[in-house]
Amino acid sequence: MTFIHDDFLLQSAAARRLYHDFAAPQPILDFHCHLSPKVIAENRRFRDLAEICLEGDHYKWRVMRANGVPERFCTGHADPYEKFLAWAKTVPYTLRNPLYHWTHLELVRYFGIHDLLDERSAPLIWQKANERLQSDELTPQGILKKFRVTNICTTEDPVTSLEFHERIESAGVPVRVCPAFRPDGALRTYDPRGFNQWTDQLADRCGSKIVHFREFLDALRSRHDEFHRHGCRLSDHGLNHCFAEPCTEQEAESFFAGVRSGAQLALSESAKLNSYLMVFFGRLDAEKGWTKQLHLGALRNVSSRMLESLGPDTGFDAMGDWPQAANLTAYLDRLEQADALPKLIIFNVNPVDNYLFATITGCFQSGASPGKIQFGSGWWYLDQKEGIELQLNALSNCGLLSRFVGMVTDSRSFLSFPRHEYFRRVLCNLLGDEMEKGLLPKDHDLVGGMVKNICYHNAHEYLSLPAALQPVAASPGKLH
Amino acid sequence: MTFIHDDFLLQSAAARRLYHDFAAPQPILDFHCHLSPKVIAENRRFRDLAEICLEGDHYKWRVMRANGVPERFCTGHADPYEKFLAWAKTVPYTLRNPLYHWTHLELVRYFGIHDLLDERSAPLIWQKANERLQSDELTPQGILKKFRVTNICTTEDPVTSLEFHERIESAGVPVRVCPAFRPDGALRTYDPRGFNQWTDQLADRCGSKIVHFREFLDALRSRHDEFHRHGCRLSDHGLNHCFAEPCTEQEAESFFAGVRSGAQLALSESAKLNSYLMVFFGRLDAEKGWTKQLHLGALRNVSSRMLESLGPDTGFDAMGDWPQAANLTAYLDRLEQADALPKLIIFNVNPVDNYLFATITGCFQSGASPGKIQFGSGWWYLDQKEGIELQLNALSNCGLLSRFVGMVTDSRSFLSFPRHEYFRRVLCNLLGDEMEKGLLPKDHDLVGGMVKNICYHNAHEYLSLPAALQPVAASPGKLH
Amino acid sequence: MTFIHDDFLLQSAAARRLYHDFAAPQPILDFHCHLSPKVIAENRRFRDLAEICLEGDHYKWRVMRANGVPERFCTGHADPYEKFLAWAKTVPYTLRNPLYHWTHLELVRYFGIHDLLDERSAPLIWQKANERLQSDELTPQGILKKFRVTNICTTEDPVTSLEFHERIESAGVPVRVCPAFRPDGALRTYDPRGFNQWTDQLADRCGSKIVHFREFLDALRSRHDEFHRHGCRLSDHGLNHCFAEPCTEQEAESFFAGVRSGAQLALSESAKLNSYLMVFFGRLDAEKGWTKQLHLGALRNVSSRMLESLGPDTGFDAMGDWPQAANLTAYLDRLEQADALPKLIIFNVNPVDNYLFATITGCFQSGASPGKIQFGSGWWYLDQKEGIELQLNALSNCGLLSRFVGMVTDSRSFLSFPRHEYFRRVLCNLLGDEMEKGLLPKDHDLVGGMVKNICYHNAHEYLSLPAALQPVAASPGKLH
Repeated sequence: MTFIHDDFLLQSAAARRLYHDFAAPQPILDFHCHLSPKVIAENRRFRDLAEICLEGDHYKWRVMRANGVPERFCTGHADPYEKFLAWAKTVPYTLRNPLYHWTHLELVRYFGIHDLLDERSAPLIWQKANERLQSDELTPQGILKKFRVTNICTTEDPVTSLEFHERIESAGVPVRVCPAFRPDGALRTYDPRGFNQWTDQLADRCGSKIVHFREFLDALRSRHDEFHRHGCRLSDHGLNHCFAEPCTEQEAESFFAGVRSGAQLALSESAKLNSYLMVFFGRLDAEKGWTKQLHLGALRNVSSRMLESLGPDTGFDAMGDWPQAANLTAYLDRLEQADALPKLIIFNVNPVDNYLFATITGCFQSGASPGKIQFGSGWWYLDQKEGIELQLNALSNCGLLSRFVGMVTDSRSFLSFPRHEYFRRVLCNLLGDEMEKGLLPKDHDLVGGMVKNICYHNAHEYLSLPAALQPVAASPGKLH
Repeated sequence: MTFIHDDFLLQSAAARRLYHDFAAPQPILDFHCHLSPKVIAENRRFRDLAEICLEGDHYKWRVMRANGVPERFCTGHADPYEKFLAWAKTVPYTLRNPLYHWTHLELVRYFGIHDLLDERSAPLIWQKANERLQSDELTPQGILKKFRVTNICTTEDPVTSLEFHERIESAGVPVRVCPAFRPDGALRTYDPRGFNQWTDQLADRCGSKIVHFREFLDALRSRHDEFHRHGCRLSDHGLNHCFAEPCTEQEAESFFAGVRSGAQLALSESAKLNSYLMVFFGRLDAEKGWTKQLHLGALRNVSSRMLESLGPDTGFDAMGDWPQAANLTAYLDRLEQADALPKLIIFNVNPVDNYLFATITGCFQSGASPGKIQFGSGWWYLDQKEGIELQLNALSNCGLLSRFVGMVTDSRSFLSFPRHEYFRRVLCNLLGDEMEKGLLPKDHDLVGGMVKNICYHNAHEYLSLPAALQPVAASPGKLH
Repeated sequence: MTFIHDDFLLQSAAARRLYHDFAAPQPILDFHCHLSPKVIAENRRFRDLAEICLEGDHYKWRVMRANGVPERFCTGHADPYEKFLAWAKTVPYTLRNPLYHWTHLELVRYFGIHDLLDERSAPLIWQKANERLQSDELTPQGILKKFRVTNICTTEDPVTSLEFHERIESAGVPVRVCPAFRPDGALRTYDPRGFNQWTDQLADRCGSKIVHFREFLDALRSRHDEFHRHGCRLSDHGLNHCFAEPCTEQEAESFFAGVRSGAQLALSESAKLNSYLMVFFGRLDAEKGWTKQLHLGALRNVSSRMLESLGPDTGFDAMGDWPQAANLTAYLDRLEQADALPKLIIFNVNPVDNYLFATITGCFQSGASPGKIQFGSGWWYLDQKEGIELQLNALSNCGLLSRFVGMVTDSRSFLSFPRHEYFRRVLCNLLGDEMEKGLLPKDHDLVGGMVKNICYHNAHEYLSLPAALQPVAASPGKLH
């Protein structure tokens, strides 16, 4: 039997039935990713396997470095085939790392290649995959169609033009590609140079000037409006931990004036200003019925040397271990008190916080909509079998798995769509095992209905994204 | 087969034998619960399923809110059947949440109903269960008898009268209902209004006045004595984290005088005063041979809005993530140095602290009594299959599972006694699985003896509670 | 079947084949232990089972205390047989604690005894084992040979003479016994008495005087050199958490002068001085190609009473819960920026930090050598089945299991070598299970090659220890 086969990861008959009958037929709604709208709009044709598989993929770079591969073959100027060969040699060393599964899923699902990748199989795989890459099916738009993606939300800086989203829409691409609003630059208030550079870009994009705090807020709101017009229904923040200091408007104005004038704020001043801004952002989202995403807990750029030579997002981020509970609950409480608590999804990178976050989400639910506050799927280092299971268990035990909005790729790579398949197999395996053991009723429609909803329909109903051009085939599961 | 059947949760032959032969025959000793002695004394007859099943049950309210159920049907004034129906509609959405198992265990064990609860089955279940509720078997005293409960310890504020405990005893109820001493009000020293209100009640209860610190301590001691006379052998504290600041008697007197006069103490002053009081409470317990319980790590009342509208204990508490080790060890060390370390049980709500607490308990054991310092069973959000297993594993790997005093319901509901059964099934399943795999010897008397002790006899011997009127049927297991 | 049999812990056919064909044939390289070189050099003959089994073993003392055994039978002056009997009575109470497995593995592997130890079996086991202890096979050198140990690294204070390492080498003992450099005394800078005592010993050992900071550093370097001449290739630090404060040479000199003059440094000053020293130690290791070990997170000596009466390392240590990420990454970053980052192994005692440390190691890898920064095997309380699996999973999911340098005993006892067998069985069981489930390819040479490397060859190649006199039988596994 091939390594990746029909029943990969599915250990029981119940799991296989859940997956094949309920999960696999669902389309994909990828509401958080980092794909390039430009690449989609231009429908770039990938030159070779190195380009589509290794470019920008810091997961792979990390394990290559850990395997003693010189930087030249990761981010450097080595020949594409040399890079691919260095990766191929590394693959057998990734046994038990999610990359071993992902890599072979990608080879099968995109290229129909069932061989295990290693130094010996590399030349033929390189040749065969590169040929396939020339077909229309493996262009960005072809891939989105092939994987039955109805919506993707790309993560965008408010200072970015949305021209490519416009081009995609006007070109009649059937998948709906919307931006998500990620104003991390607005919170860079402890770094006057970075903050002012970003604020100048924001002013330029809005065609206004930003001197006073009010102008800053107006510019942010105007971009928020513009994103909304382009179908944006989600915002996003990448934070070590929440900001939740009390801060009056007067204080915020004064701190803003300070950093805008180039002064270095004290850490506590920056935290206060950011706290003010986070409430402002919450209010914007709540007003428009958006969903706010919080990505909490990553400790980024820990290697100064590599940050200087390669920049961020190149594989030098770790988990952090900040206390999360007090600030996160204070932030949500403040929004709730101000009638400004939007729908919210909390993503967590350090598994120690899984149970914590699952219990916190349960404290701010509201009768208004099911599952209003969500505990998001295993993020980054937790997007693997054990991590997915840990998140599913914490959520199940402290909340309602059945209302979960499910998986996102969070990926920069067009090869990542099989991660939805991977998640679904893990989910069905878990549920099927419990059906066989009598921990769940042996009622396939009941459990299968939950599967359908987690795989697609919960997110679809929860997010209220603009409709895609192609209709959704399957209907939601009823749990009674 | 019905969902709840004889071998529910028991995956192996060894597990089934351990459960049926060793665990199931044991009576129940529930040394930590929140049942109302008034309701027991008056042997209140429950009107309907909504009253016995939903009233005061914040676990259920939480998942109802998460399912989009308006507050009216949780804590509000909706009609009892409407409330029950809202709950019934939510139940299918609780798949994988412990409530799904608990609910169906309750329906079977109390009402003999084997149907799965959902919108369709609700009307008939409502009718059938309400009929059963009119039988004497399902009054509070009937329930205690039905579940073979020998002792319960209800959690009481020292300012409370113990009249209902007296009435229960003098009425000849065969189960022994003792109070447990929980002086959380004494530690509310950062809140002068709350503290003084509580201290006035304490003075009233003692028929004395409390001006000086010494009078405060005397009043506390006098209530401790009074509780002892009513069979109390346990105290209890609900704390974010331990208090363990050095604090002299003079300092304590001065801080007490401050807060008693209505002044707001600094956080550090309040922590010092509380530290002094915690040593005082430890000493009281040690002198009388009581067992102290610490419930550590909950972050309570995170929603200001809901605290204001509904009050505490209504489902708006989360886990916290305070550092625990330094303060907890300093507290135990201080008690040990003062020859005032009582028997102690540490309950933990955040699973990240399981291993930590298991190793800390092992540092303060003493040859005087086996298992003197205990790591308590999975508490609150951890009182479910995964949480129970995590606690059992941490305890087993870092200490002596065989000396464990076992399960408590910690519940406000008379429907919660099957949680002992649930715990026992999880325990036997874990041990049986390891017997089958050869990780434990295939010696049923050896492992079964441990099971008997964990289910009943360890707690019985450890706590030295006043004897119940009905004798304990089974004898403890010998482990050699 | 006996409790410890050929396939103990191995639940699947694949696991059994991996263990018997690939893991078991590997010799042992125990690069971190606390064995006494004096005992090895003198080839001490153990008097009885109490001496070899209980002396210095605080793991056993802890569970005896938890079982109500008075201190007299643990660290006190009870008769050896009485001590053994107290231990034998405790053993049945250790079900599910790793000691239950370890104890019976030891009885089988050293003494050929297959009985389960308890009060009844104790007399005969005592007699039989004591007889066996008189054979040459169970002397320290006999044991090292019997378990096919090629190298051990004993943990030594720099102030220690290395005469016994010399004697072992010149006596032609076939196992290579090298020291590892553990300068914990140099970091005791918050304790002027302890620090100066240690520094005086250091000066004596070097035959120099230490007044100025430069002389202190020179003395440390001279011991580092001397250790290197004796085959030392590893250093080691036991720390609550890393030190990573900025500290100039001038500051360090001034803080050193302070503590050397007997003054009490402020905590922040001590932290700065230690930070300076940790960079110095990193540089020493990097220059000589050594591997640095960090043992992070233990909270030691929490019982003042027992510390006073018994001293350290007697069973009164717990896990701590300090934040680790910021300081650890800052330390590694500083070393990397200074081109002074040696090979490094991070050992962790609190399981909450497993994933954290696994991701941090991945941020400082370098193309220069595979697996340069290692996440070490489950340490102390984590050296048991669950703990080993947690570490293996965190490492696998966030890094390269295939490059892992594997197991160490970290033990004071000559009875601990079967812990390598234990680790290998756990490893093979995990991998075999995943082969059966199709999570790993069913390719025994591929997975078995990884097993061989983790069990021996990775450590052998990574550490570059001086060659042992007896050649290594097996060759490393190739992963393609």
